[in-house]
Amino acid sequence: HKEDLELAAVYVSDAQHNRNIFFETQPHAVRLYLLYNHWFLGVLLYFFILVNLLLAVVEQPALLAFPTWACMLVELVCLLVFSGRLVHYAKVIPQDKFWRDPKNLCILVILLLTLVDMIIYGALKATDNYAVRWSRVLRPLLLVNFTEGRQLRRAFRSIRNALPQILSVFLLFIFSILIFSLMALKLFGKRGLKTNSGRPYFTNFLEIVFDLYVLVTTANSPDIMMPAYNASSFFAMFFIIFILINTYIFMSVFLAVVYNNYKKYLKEEVHQLVRTKRNKMVRAFAILQERREGWEEPGVSHTSWNQLVHLVQSDLSHAHRELLWSVADHHNQGYIGKLAFVQLADLLNIQVIAVKSRPHPLQCWSPSLYLSTPSRWLRHAVQHRVFVMVYDVIILVNAVFIGLDEEDPLIRNSEWFFLALYVLEILLKLYALEPRAFYSRHNFWNWFDTIIIVSALVATIINTAMTSVGGYSSRQILDIVFTLRVLRLIRVVDSIKRFRVIINTLIKIGPTMLTFAQLIIVVYYIFAMVGMELFQGRIEFLDSASPGKSSCGSPALQDSSFAQLNYCKNNFNNVVSSFILLVELTVVNQWHDILLNQLPSEPPFTLLSSGFTAVTHPSARLFFILFHVIVVIIIVNIFVAFVLEAFFVEY
Amino acid sequence: HKEDLELAAVYVSDAQHNRNIFFETQPHAVRLYLLYNHWFLGVLLYFFILVNLLLAVVEQPALLAFPTWACMLVELVCLLVFSGRLVHYAKVIPQDKFWRDPKNLCILVILLLTLVDMIIYGALKATDNYAVRWSRVLRPLLLVNFTEGRQLRRAFRSIRNALPQILSVFLLFIFSILIFSLMALKLFGKRGLKTNSGRPYFTNFLEIVFDLYVLVTTANSPDIMMPAYNASSFFAMFFIIFILINTYIFMSVFLAVVYNNYKKYLKEEVHQLVRTKRNKMVRAFAILQERREGWEEPGVSHTSWNQLVHLVQSDLSHAHRELLWSVADHHNQGYIGKLAFVQLADLLNIQVIAVKSRPHPLQCWSPSLYLSTPSRWLRHAVQHRVFVMVYDVIILVNAVFIGLDEEDPLIRNSEWFFLALYVLEILLKLYALEPRAFYSRHNFWNWFDTIIIVSALVATIINTAMTSVGGYSSRQILDIVFTLRVLRLIRVVDSIKRFRVIINTLIKIGPTMLTFAQLIIVVYYIFAMVGMELFQGRIEFLDSASPGKSSCGSPALQDSSFAQLNYCKNNFNNVVSSFILLVELTVVNQWHDILLNQLPSEPPFTLLSSGFTAVTHPSARLFFILFHVIVVIIIVNIFVAFVLEAFFVEY
Ligand code: NA
Repeated sequence: HKEDLELAAVYVSDAQHNRNIFFETQPHAVRLYLLYNHWFLGVLLYFFILVNLLLAVVEQPALLAFPTWACMLVELVCLLVFSGRLVHYAKVIPQDKFWRDPKNLCILVILLLTLVDMIIYGALKATDNYAVRWSRVLRPLLLVNFTEGRQLRRAFRSIRNALPQILSVFLLFIFSILIFSLMALKLFGKRGLKTNSGRPYFTNFLEIVFDLYVLVTTANSPDIMMPAYNASSFFAMFFIIFILINTYIFMSVFLAVVYNNYKKYLKEEVHQLVRTKRNKMVRAFAILQERREGWEEPGVSHTSWNQLVHLVQSDLSHAHRELLWSVADHHNQGYIGKLAFVQLADLLNIQVIAVKSRPHPLQCWSPSLYLSTPSRWLRHAVQHRVFVMVYDVIILVNAVFIGLDEEDPLIRNSEWFFLALYVLEILLKLYALEPRAFYSRHNFWNWFDTIIIVSALVATIINTAMTSVGGYSSRQILDIVFTLRVLRLIRVVDSIKRFRVIINTLIKIGPTMLTFAQLIIVVYYIFAMVGMELFQGRIEFLDSASPGKSSCGSPALQDSSFAQLNYCKNNFNNVVSSFILLVELTVVNQWHDILLNQLPSEPPFTLLSSGFTAVTHPSARLFFILFHVIVVIIIVNIFVAFVLEAFFVEY
Repeated sequence: HKEDLELAAVYVSDAQHNRNIFFETQPHAVRLYLLYNHWFLGVLLYFFILVNLLLAVVEQPALLAFPTWACMLVELVCLLVFSGRLVHYAKVIPQDKFWRDPKNLCILVILLLTLVDMIIYGALKATDNYAVRWSRVLRPLLLVNFTEGRQLRRAFRSIRNALPQILSVFLLFIFSILIFSLMALKLFGKRGLKTNSGRPYFTNFLEIVFDLYVLVTTANSPDIMMPAYNASSFFAMFFIIFILINTYIFMSVFLAVVYNNYKKYLKEEVHQLVRTKRNKMVRAFAILQERREGWEEPGVSHTSWNQLVHLVQSDLSHAHRELLWSVADHHNQGYIGKLAFVQLADLLNIQVIAVKSRPHPLQCWSPSLYLSTPSRWLRHAVQHRVFVMVYDVIILVNAVFIGLDEEDPLIRNSEWFFLALYVLEILLKLYALEPRAFYSRHNFWNWFDTIIIVSALVATIINTAMTSVGGYSSRQILDIVFTLRVLRLIRVVDSIKRFRVIINTLIKIGPTMLTFAQLIIVVYYIFAMVGMELFQGRIEFLDSASPGKSSCGSPALQDSSFAQLNYCKNNFNNVVSSFILLVELTVVNQWHDILLNQLPSEPPFTLLSSGFTAVTHPSARLFFILFHVIVVIIIVNIFVAFVLEAFFVEY
């Protein structure tokens, strides 16, 4: 019976946590499965995935170069861990299911390809040949394919499902750009106009297509219009209509299509989730069900129920367990039928907030003092509206002091005063309210306050100690102190009622954003790896003493606007620079300026006019256009859809 | 009885056209009301509103200067027409209703203020004083306040209703920018960093606020980040978080709030519309109802019905009228009750498409020829799928020829060949299909084809004639020829099935866009008028021969990036430039560069560093920030909401 109970508990736990794994049901397999689901192994897996991803920091081209053998060693350890996890999974589920699941095959292929790549790379490096670690683009895919990446897989599936419709709109959009480009060629090509840099204006069809594509992102507005506009005001119409159709209408249609598919797909996924959950609960019921006299149907007895709930969630109090029982058995039949049982998984997920007013620890320690009139008056005062208002005023005064000059000793020392006030506030609140209630999970602002204030206190003390001992203050510590000091001010929005709905909605989006962050990391990582291989070392950020400073270390960029704008650090020379550059490309502004200068050797203008003659150029442009299509058109729109949906649900 | 019938007809007509005017019901007032609703008077009104708005082209600062007295004279005529319309309206509706309606008071105030302004302006000009035509900003408001501007008023009302929620989000957004600015001041202010132009970086709080506001629009990305990023890669985090929160999250929240309110309000408006419509129909029924023997309830007889429908829509055929009757009286009771009668307004709005196959005119003219085997075969061929495919191939080949060089005589003459093919296509289709069916209202593409081809034919003939006679071709005619030639290619999308849903949805949005265009014209016009008064003549676009060309006619702009980028034509010197500049500001890119140079006298960089000392600067920045908030945050989001809603309804 014990083994049955354990199996049932696993089913319920799976249903509770939305796991969808068809594990084998022999007792030893169930125990292996329980181990597989252990939080520690999950954390370990994510830790090694992170280590594997972070290897890019120390691999060539590195931010912080490690010897190749060290990187390889670390990666081997990661591969071992991943293999171990995969083998563990293979032992848990039936063999045929394992081989039929594309996720597992994906992981296997990734692991094998990585191994092959490492061997080839090692051999080539050992013989001093040129070598590329091409398998690095596969690393983020592990994040998607391990069983834990359920949410992320869902996001990717929703993108895949939206693709046919997105493709239709995209083809129409490209058609529109081609038509406008042809028109631009006919209208402006023979007019002998010159761009600002003296090149012929709109004479090459493919360049026009590229320029107009950039105009859709508004990045070269109004520059691209100026030569035509300077020639005649009428030509502005061409660009206005172009922007109206392509930037405003088409980009909105992309949002509409992405949003619509995302919503439709989400609905289907929720249905699927509910079905799977029900399925698991029905299995658990089938194991535990008994037929007894006086019962109208097969059911689960109170004893089995108690044992089951204890196995599934051992930290549940007796009272809570009895509460769940009385909810499930609300007709007081003494057993629970199938229908009621199926809802257990959801019941377990409901957070029962203990509203019962526990006595304050101080009250237990010294009731006479805590319940005395002055104490009572104090507690009342702390919970009064005026108390909140007084502290709001203090925050505003503090904001002014923060804005004033730090050099002034009065201002510098006032910080201690404000810190003392904030610490006093927290202490007073802890005096008035039961500490466990004060720090309960849904009290976002109490946690926020305490963490910020305590950190600020610690950082300020360290800073003062360093100043008085060494006579100087560390810039890093000061930065932290300043940041914490300003963050403290955010607190004021919580006391303004009209902001609360918005803030709460934003806080609620938080967890979904985590999935989204993974999604963006997968895409960024792949583009960063490819970008680093294609463009590393082309542009260098040199310190002011170096002679090549004004040309980003590349003679071709001498006197280019790229170098003049101090953009040299926008390069693909290491993974951090690459990520920041990709963020800039996501923001889109100036992207054509940035990207064209990542291209090899020639200064941008001759490069542009030379057109698609050299081999590397068109493919390099495609890299950036592809990035724009995937990140700006698809992923940013999914992000906007997330936010829109959250607010539509809220209002 | 005739007068009753006329009154009922007016009610039905009002319901049919969603008019909501409580006119007086005396016979002479009804006749006056009918006149008021006459389409000609409506067109006349819009014509004079347009003339009034277009006066800005010829008034100082003018694109095409007219003498002041001529402008004044035209404006007086406009005012007379508007007053006439208002008086007419006053005669139509009850006196107390007239004075209680804010629309009428608005128009009255606008007219009076305009008159006062004209007198003051005339007097000041006559005595050679400085004078401003400040009442010009009121002109577009006439578009909103006349009874015909129902849709536009609805749009403005929906904006007004969304304002409280938008304001909440906006305040939070501003708070977020202030917090980030304070943090930037503390983090970067004391580091002694320099911007690219050598100014101190992030040392003045108000300038930081402005710079970060511009960063929200992405217009100064990545420039604003570069000094901090060059100092340390960690600082990129500050800007990435800033952009994530303010550009991506807050801008999406603005869209969510605008979209949500727009939808909610639209629903309410539709309910209101349905109520008003019902109300009008009930009144009409009350007038026409009779009680006869054998009728279970009061009803409208067939005779009254026929007379009514004939009055409301005299162009309706007898068959169509009988069809409507049989739909309304579907129990064949011989009368129509209240419930059925109320639906008449909607019934009248349904387009009954005459599907009956009328014989082709050629068939009537010569049946034996038209029905002969070759003719039949030809008609069949034209309607075959292959015919469409052949013409799609022709269009693609044509596209290649358009892209090739016009100088080549072979290419130039091929145009005649293609034109002939397209004309042949239209003639063949007209031969195969009944012309009235071919040109029925819902056949967008047939109309599109015919107009484009006929225009291209005419323009090409004119161009050839001019070339052969005068030996040269006019650039303007050539531009038209080229544009038409390229537009012809669009036709190809109609034959691709996957594009049809998208295209049809976009075509359906068309009429709504008209309201939207009016909305944007109202806002642009007001900003253009104010902008022209504030900034006219500061920057001038000079032809290349002028000595001040390289500094836009203002010594302060010598060697500024504004002048170097050839932006001189981006000024407020006349209404057309102003509108184009406002479009550029809507697109947002480079707006800070454009706007700061509209400010008086100082070169941009000293101007920025001089901070808010001079009086004109802060107000001028406010002009542009206000424009951004109103146009980009509110109006563009409403536009996006329009497009989103249209696509959500469609899918
Ligand atoms: Na931009």
